[in-house]
Amino acid sequence: MSKIVTFGEIMLRLSTERHLRFIQAKTFAASYGGGEFNVAVSLANYGLETDFITKVPENDIGACAVKEMRKLKVGLDNVAYGGERLGIYYLETGAGTRGSKVVYDRSNSSLATTKPGDFDWKKIFEGATWFHWSGITPAISESAANQCLEAVKAAHELGLKISCDLNYRSKLWKYGKQPSEVMPELLSYSHVILGDIDTAYFMLGKNKVNPNYQDEKSLPSLYDALFKLCPNLEFVATTLRYSVSASHQRIGGVLYDGKQIYNAHIKEVTPVVDRVGSGDAFMGGLIYGLLTYNQELQKALDFAVAACCLKHTISGDYNLVTLEEVEKMMTGDSTGKVSR
Amino acid sequence: MSKIVTFGEIMLRLSTERHLRFIQAKTFAASYGGGEFNVAVSLANYGLETDFITKVPENDIGACAVKEMRKLKVGLDNVAYGGERLGIYYLETGAGTRGSKVVYDRSNSSLATTKPGDFDWKKIFEGATWFHWSGITPAISESAANQCLEAVKAAHELGLKISCDLNYRSKLWKYGKQPSEVMPELLSYSHVILGDIDTAYFMLGKNKVNPNYQDEKSLPSLYDALFKLCPNLEFVATTLRYSVSASHQRIGGVLYDGKQIYNAHIKEVTPVVDRVGSGDAFMGGLIYGLLTYNQELQKALDFAVAACCLKHTISGDYNLVTLEEVEKMMTGDSTGKVSR
Amino acid sequence: MSKIVTFGEIMLRLSTERHLRFIQAKTFAASYGGGEFNVAVSLANYGLETDFITKVPENDIGACAVKEMRKLKVGLDNVAYGGERLGIYYLETGAGTRGSKVVYDRSNSSLATTKPGDFDWKKIFEGATWFHWSGITPAISESAANQCLEAVKAAHELGLKISCDLNYRSKLWKYGKQPSEVMPELLSYSHVILGDIDTAYFMLGKNKVNPNYQDEKSLPSLYDALFKLCPNLEFVATTLRYSVSASHQRIGGVLYDGKQIYNAHIKEVTPVVDRVGSGDAFMGGLIYGLLTYNQELQKALDFAVAACCLKHTISGDYNLVTLEEVEKMMTGDSTGKVSR
Amino acid sequence: MSKIVTFGEIMLRLSTERHLRFIQAKTFAASYGGGEFNVAVSLANYGLETDFITKVPENDIGACAVKEMRKLKVGLDNVAYGGERLGIYYLETGAGTRGSKVVYDRSNSSLATTKPGDFDWKKIFEGATWFHWSGITPAISESAANQCLEAVKAAHELGLKISCDLNYRSKLWKYGKQPSEVMPELLSYSHVILGDIDTAYFMLGKNKVNPNYQDEKSLPSLYDALFKLCPNLEFVATTLRYSVSASHQRIGGVLYDGKQIYNAHIKEVTPVVDRVGSGDAFMGGLIYGLLTYNQELQKALDFAVAACCLKHTISGDYNLVTLEEVEKMMTGDSTGKVSR
Amino acid sequence: MSKIVTFGEIMLRLSTERHLRFIQAKTFAASYGGGEFNVAVSLANYGLETDFITKVPENDIGACAVKEMRKLKVGLDNVAYGGERLGIYYLETGAGTRGSKVVYDRSNSSLATTKPGDFDWKKIFEGATWFHWSGITPAISESAANQCLEAVKAAHELGLKISCDLNYRSKLWKYGKQPSEVMPELLSYSHVILGDIDTAYFMLGKNKVNPNYQDEKSLPSLYDALFKLCPNLEFVATTLRYSVSASHQRIGGVLYDGKQIYNAHIKEVTPVVDRVGSGDAFMGGLIYGLLTYNQELQKALDFAVAACCLKHTISGDYNLVTLEEVEKMMTGDSTGKVSR
Amino acid sequence: MSKIVTFGEIMLRLSTERHLRFIQAKTFAASYGGGEFNVAVSLANYGLETDFITKVPENDIGACAVKEMRKLKVGLDNVAYGGERLGIYYLETGAGTRGSKVVYDRSNSSLATTKPGDFDWKKIFEGATWFHWSGITPAISESAANQCLEAVKAAHELGLKISCDLNYRSKLWKYGKQPSEVMPELLSYSHVILGDIDTAYFMLGKNKVNPNYQDEKSLPSLYDALFKLCPNLEFVATTLRYSVSASHQRIGGVLYDGKQIYNAHIKEVTPVVDRVGSGDAFMGGLIYGLLTYNQELQKALDFAVAACCLKHTISGDYNLVTLEEVEKMMTGDSTGKVSR
Repeated sequence: MSKIVTFGEIMLRLSTERHLRFIQAKTFAASYGGGEFNVAVSLANYGLETDFITKVPENDIGACAVKEMRKLKVGLDNVAYGGERLGIYYLETGAGTRGSKVVYDRSNSSLATTKPGDFDWKKIFEGATWFHWSGITPAISESAANQCLEAVKAAHELGLKISCDLNYRSKLWKYGKQPSEVMPELLSYSHVILGDIDTAYFMLGKNKVNPNYQDEKSLPSLYDALFKLCPNLEFVATTLRYSVSASHQRIGGVLYDGKQIYNAHIKEVTPVVDRVGSGDAFMGGLIYGLLTYNQELQKALDFAVAACCLKHTISGDYNLVTLEEVEKMMTGDSTGKVSR
Repeated sequence: MSKIVTFGEIMLRLSTERHLRFIQAKTFAASYGGGEFNVAVSLANYGLETDFITKVPENDIGACAVKEMRKLKVGLDNVAYGGERLGIYYLETGAGTRGSKVVYDRSNSSLATTKPGDFDWKKIFEGATWFHWSGITPAISESAANQCLEAVKAAHELGLKISCDLNYRSKLWKYGKQPSEVMPELLSYSHVILGDIDTAYFMLGKNKVNPNYQDEKSLPSLYDALFKLCPNLEFVATTLRYSVSASHQRIGGVLYDGKQIYNAHIKEVTPVVDRVGSGDAFMGGLIYGLLTYNQELQKALDFAVAACCLKHTISGDYNLVTLEEVEKMMTGDSTGKVSR
Repeated sequence: MSKIVTFGEIMLRLSTERHLRFIQAKTFAASYGGGEFNVAVSLANYGLETDFITKVPENDIGACAVKEMRKLKVGLDNVAYGGERLGIYYLETGAGTRGSKVVYDRSNSSLATTKPGDFDWKKIFEGATWFHWSGITPAISESAANQCLEAVKAAHELGLKISCDLNYRSKLWKYGKQPSEVMPELLSYSHVILGDIDTAYFMLGKNKVNPNYQDEKSLPSLYDALFKLCPNLEFVATTLRYSVSASHQRIGGVLYDGKQIYNAHIKEVTPVVDRVGSGDAFMGGLIYGLLTYNQELQKALDFAVAACCLKHTISGDYNLVTLEEVEKMMTGDSTGKVSR
Repeated sequence: MSKIVTFGEIMLRLSTERHLRFIQAKTFAASYGGGEFNVAVSLANYGLETDFITKVPENDIGACAVKEMRKLKVGLDNVAYGGERLGIYYLETGAGTRGSKVVYDRSNSSLATTKPGDFDWKKIFEGATWFHWSGITPAISESAANQCLEAVKAAHELGLKISCDLNYRSKLWKYGKQPSEVMPELLSYSHVILGDIDTAYFMLGKNKVNPNYQDEKSLPSLYDALFKLCPNLEFVATTLRYSVSASHQRIGGVLYDGKQIYNAHIKEVTPVVDRVGSGDAFMGGLIYGLLTYNQELQKALDFAVAACCLKHTISGDYNLVTLEEVEKMMTGDSTGKVSR
Repeated sequence: MSKIVTFGEIMLRLSTERHLRFIQAKTFAASYGGGEFNVAVSLANYGLETDFITKVPENDIGACAVKEMRKLKVGLDNVAYGGERLGIYYLETGAGTRGSKVVYDRSNSSLATTKPGDFDWKKIFEGATWFHWSGITPAISESAANQCLEAVKAAHELGLKISCDLNYRSKLWKYGKQPSEVMPELLSYSHVILGDIDTAYFMLGKNKVNPNYQDEKSLPSLYDALFKLCPNLEFVATTLRYSVSASHQRIGGVLYDGKQIYNAHIKEVTPVVDRVGSGDAFMGGLIYGLLTYNQELQKALDFAVAACCLKHTISGDYNLVTLEEVEKMMTGDSTGKVSR
Repeated sequence: MSKIVTFGEIMLRLSTERHLRFIQAKTFAASYGGGEFNVAVSLANYGLETDFITKVPENDIGACAVKEMRKLKVGLDNVAYGGERLGIYYLETGAGTRGSKVVYDRSNSSLATTKPGDFDWKKIFEGATWFHWSGITPAISESAANQCLEAVKAAHELGLKISCDLNYRSKLWKYGKQPSEVMPELLSYSHVILGDIDTAYFMLGKNKVNPNYQDEKSLPSLYDALFKLCPNLEFVATTLRYSVSASHQRIGGVLYDGKQIYNAHIKEVTPVVDRVGSGDAFMGGLIYGLLTYNQELQKALDFAVAACCLKHTISGDYNLVTLEEVEKMMTGDSTGKVSR
């Protein structure tokens, strides 16, 4: 059976409720999340074994994050402890024409200040078959980027499949390096990349091309450029997200295996309860799909898209849905009838 | 003036708030409801006299249910007391592509364990003109089914009009009998049946036919079959419910009097605040409409559909709207302007 | 730099939460608002200096209203103190086909019982360049109407620009005078009027004409009638509001300067978080637009419409958005993407 | 069996939660209460038949007050409808050294503007045995005082027992009359008066004497003065209330029947959940006690004191306790053990 | 290292908030607890390995209970799944003179309907050193009592230490057997009993003696009677609980090892945030104390009393405190200073 | 009239509600506070002019802090903007024997990273008469300590009175300097010091002496040592705080002017709603008292103690009480009666 290791930061998320603006909030809903953690939660919900690697402070707030991992049955045996603080992000939930706002307060966090020796990657990867990381970790600090590189190399040596969600965040990358200085080496080990073509190009130092994802003829050559730059690459996927408004999204996806383009039907997602983490839900679905339906790539993609859609109906960072719920929706039932 | 008696179970409803999943809930909103109670509430709101027949335990939770009846001006003089517990249903409110979930915890309830002698139907029906029951009560236990039969027979003898909402729930009917063993006799006394043609066929032991409710030509003969099986039948109605998503319903309705098909315009219902109880709102509206507009069947149906639509905007099981509000909407104003 | 004075009543607003009906509410959300105050808040948010003139009681509830003004950086140096009570309005927030309900409880309020001498208009208007009032103030009591007339005359003498939002409320005007007895003189001093043509005609004693706002040919002459009746008039604007449901509005606007009709694109607004105060948001946006873009009337109108649309996503009476947010939407971005 | 009629104002109570100050409150808890209504609730809880006489506006807020009466099984058949508004009182709940604050907003309420003909006292008192009023009603307006006098006279003529809780509120009595101009006639018909000796003296036009309620020797003559001024008087009672802090009260009581002083043990009440309405709980307990234990005056007093103590543990205006709970405490068990 | 197995029912706890009565509650706080689960949580918090044995239904509510176990790091590998429902208890939290109320709704629960084969005790006890059960389990149903006996016998055979909290609940024991028919055999295997002397006597079929726990002379012989009836007994302990009011408890404890009486200082506990589960906190503390300080029985008892006191400050069923917090209080610091 | 400048950090305070532990919290109450800000709020509430000097980030969270200042009428014209984040402290509110817990997350805050040039002290102190700082600011970072020294020197040069609350926090002072290396110079300019004798000794590099504050004979010489070390010192004050439990404090205070000891009566404070900021309330009261009653030192001290006691009843960091409320309590009325 597969065991998937994911590596990244878990943060305290402080969000306003009922579409209130920050200035109106007298309380913040407190939960815990982060891209790579969210992927691990998805996979745990689908019944896979996971191990989440992060570093949290030895205080009550760090302990809360750890309890969240345990409750969700995400493996936590290799969490490192220390540092000064748990990173935070503030979330103001938009509606209609008003978009949501994220204010990061994650600098100087325990993971951002990780030190060599915090993680024994050889030991961590024992028994693991897959390693997932994202473009956020190398963006938060130089030491986190270094750890990420160590991890990717160790995973590569041990023969794990490696996936990366590019996750470009312009408000990060403040420590003096550009993505194009850091990401190419990291991505060179990856078997699966999730991201826009232009984001990938940007991170790999190429010029943007503004691709048309509905044009299945031009897509292969655009994706092929990535295969050339990333010698281990087997699959590239892109989440298609047409934002009608903060409350109405249209979600699709494209998967390419170097030979063929797979395209998922666009689904209407309205209303949006919470769209944060929907990309992570896609990623989690894609990993599950590739592991489970790997001879049926269309099915793998459809599973990812269905998982992504369902995430928009779930409050919080991660996708609290079961395998059965995603499968039911994947096979066409999205009418939202009462189950009783 | 009419006095309508309804008979069924009132439950504690424990629902998550703000579309949370069960596992996310630290609190449950507590309210009280049940199909036949909800019908009584609708009728009381429209100004009719009602009497709700049920059995509740002699503890604080039973007392809460009784206070709810009183507050809503539903007649409660013939409520029976005793048994071990008030039935419960848990409700997780869905959104968009994720449907709502109901978890029943109603076995062994006071009504499910009702005993002969709990209800003196002759006395209960004194001064009453209408008796309403639904397919839920004979589904919860053999003794409840027996009481239901006693009630229907007594109502028949005393010349009351009898209506039934078929309300098939596959998770009930666990006590060893099938609907087709129990419902035919019960329905044989009914003057009004609300339900899908296929549900009615199933309960009466006929094969399903998957009717097309837009085809007004084929409908009469399909409904006519019910008139043949239920000798007292005067009206059959079907709620049309096209579920675009958990947050968007399209609601219509059909009424047939053995001669003519009446069809209501489909109305868009979005967003859905709470769709539980919308069928009961239709039923309540239909009874009101038949009593009030009985020479104008189209109007009776339109009233039922308008009531059903408005229910979707009301939190909780029952339809907290006034006669004026339903009439206003029935006559076309559904623009939701501010009244000030 | 401009300083805008607005005059009117600030009320305690008690609203039900999560679309509950009044009878379901165990708590009321408490906030403070009122048409002319809301305009001042908009302008303060856009960086302009404002002064809000009102009268509040010398008790804790009046003090809360004053603290709200201060927090929002609305000028409060000329607030009058005294009288018995702060006016209240109760708000039940609708959804879908069920409209919101407002119950006024504002009679006998401090402003309704204002006395001569409460406001020294000459002193108040020192350094001011614009005076805004609305048709609500002369509707609440004779003494408020008198103060309004005093204010308008003083502003006129001192050469301020004067704007009026007609804001007809049929549940007010209970003190014995009709709008047509009071409004013509008040409006005769105004440079800017916001309102429907028919509301303006009604208030000025003319018959309604049910104009077609999409017919740009017939509009000029209909608006011209107002220019004839109001000798100081420079601009008339109308908010176009097509109510699909309580949760879905389509918002546009028309501006006329006596020469040319400017028409804004209709924007879809769904879902509606709170539509109360959206007219005030339009008014605030229009004043800002006229002050800032006054050679570009289309831009001024577009700003007003964008502000109005955004208000529908904000809980509470006033428009808690920044200049940048309105400008971003005005220039076309209404996709509500996450900002991070 | 007894039927008790009480007459007075029911208000919307808006209170801050968790000891917040007014300025901190973003929500107000909304409930309904008022002295004479609270007495009726107590009596209904003890199983007696009641009828509450008041006037409420014909709007949604008035309807909420009526639904509260119905839920609590208080008789409401003789409620008058009309007028402009339901009175309000705002409550800031103190703690420890900080006392609670009440801000009245009840002028111009439906009851304050009651008109002759609103109440047909003869009809109202049919079948009734007891009439209860309090010193609040004649304090709110001249027309309310007039109605109170009409009621008292009618009750006297029809031979009902009449009780009055003096309830002096210095912030009321603003309509131009002093208590001593109004209360003597009203009290002359009363059989039971609840109040401090000094309050009674003040209302009857006598000088205050600052009595020592522990001195059972001096008390009889001080109370006897009341018997002289009120020819129908049979019982006077005083609630003893030693306020250690807002969170800690010591409660006792004195009852005098013109012959003998009865004194109840002082009980410690801490913490105080809500002390508003504790005097009404005493009054309700006293009426019940006099009706039920009338040969055992000590028991009647003890019941009143026990009811008063329990009220301090109940949130809201009225005493939501059962007969059994008061009796259990009256007979000594105040240890607050878990019942399971 | 020790591994402690506990066996019993976990229930959904539905409690009113802020001292509201049941009838006032619009929401219930939802948590999960039960005597033997609470003991396991205490021990897990102190760093010991635990395994909790229970049976939960295979529905969402059962899944919530399981997630709670996992989050709290209580072992759940041997939980049985099946049956109809998770038991419930409703809790109304009292204050001052008004005690809390518990309404049980636990009949027909998954554990109450446990069947032979649900638990493989031999396997469960592998690696375990201690088994804890309580008098609640044999009280809920005959099959639960049978499972309890099987468990006790298996634990005995395998040489585990066995502890029992007598936990007499008069509202249970409804299935036709008396405690004295069931408990003697069960208790005969126990090494540690927690309970009142009179409760123990009652369960063992002896007459009550109303012991004076302050009289250290008479106590030994009273406890010795238990040693005679329970041949494996090593320690008996009694929680002393003097209830000043629902908000103020005085807590002490007695421990007897057959030779010597150990008595803990009475501690003042006020205010009481939540006293449910305080006995379980004592039990958990006692097991920890006996395992850790077993040559120092006074210390073991003091630890149990300190844990019990702290529990009163924690909302919910179980004792969310750390080893360090209990030890700090045990050694005298109960001043509740701010830690910063 | 006086204008008081205070300088320090304002933080976001995230606190659990209803005595929940961190791990139980699904929401955090969000407010803003900090020692020197709290002092400014107190003084603003008493009607004095204040100016609060701090640095906040240019993001939404910083804007929230600024809006809080404005609402509370604290001067904010000299606030500096910039840096990365607003400092945070998490607060778990204890009860009874369980103390409250504070977790600091304030490193790297905007104020901690203040740079030379952020504050133009000469300009800031124009028109000011008093400068207040506390021992927290020099504890957070070297640059903050430097700014503090600059401020103190500038205030000294300009002839302002300078006060300091020692406020020792052992969890701060992490940047490499000890209090005794930094505080002596800072304190040498102060006219008023608030703190324990031992804290003062520790910060000034002297050995602790464990003083007995009830022994008025030994106190003068102990305080005199401070006068020797701080040449500008005029008053030393100590808050006496006897912690019975987290919910029950006894509060007193000592003031010494170099000649005479003033001692305030100990007041019982129970229950404690929120004790954080009670020292700041004392400080604010003392500054007000010294400014207002400066010939009556006993009165100044009594005012400070009364303010401190009242703060314990107020939720949040700062003391939301009026001058009248403190004076009323100062003169003896602490019975917490209802004001109505």
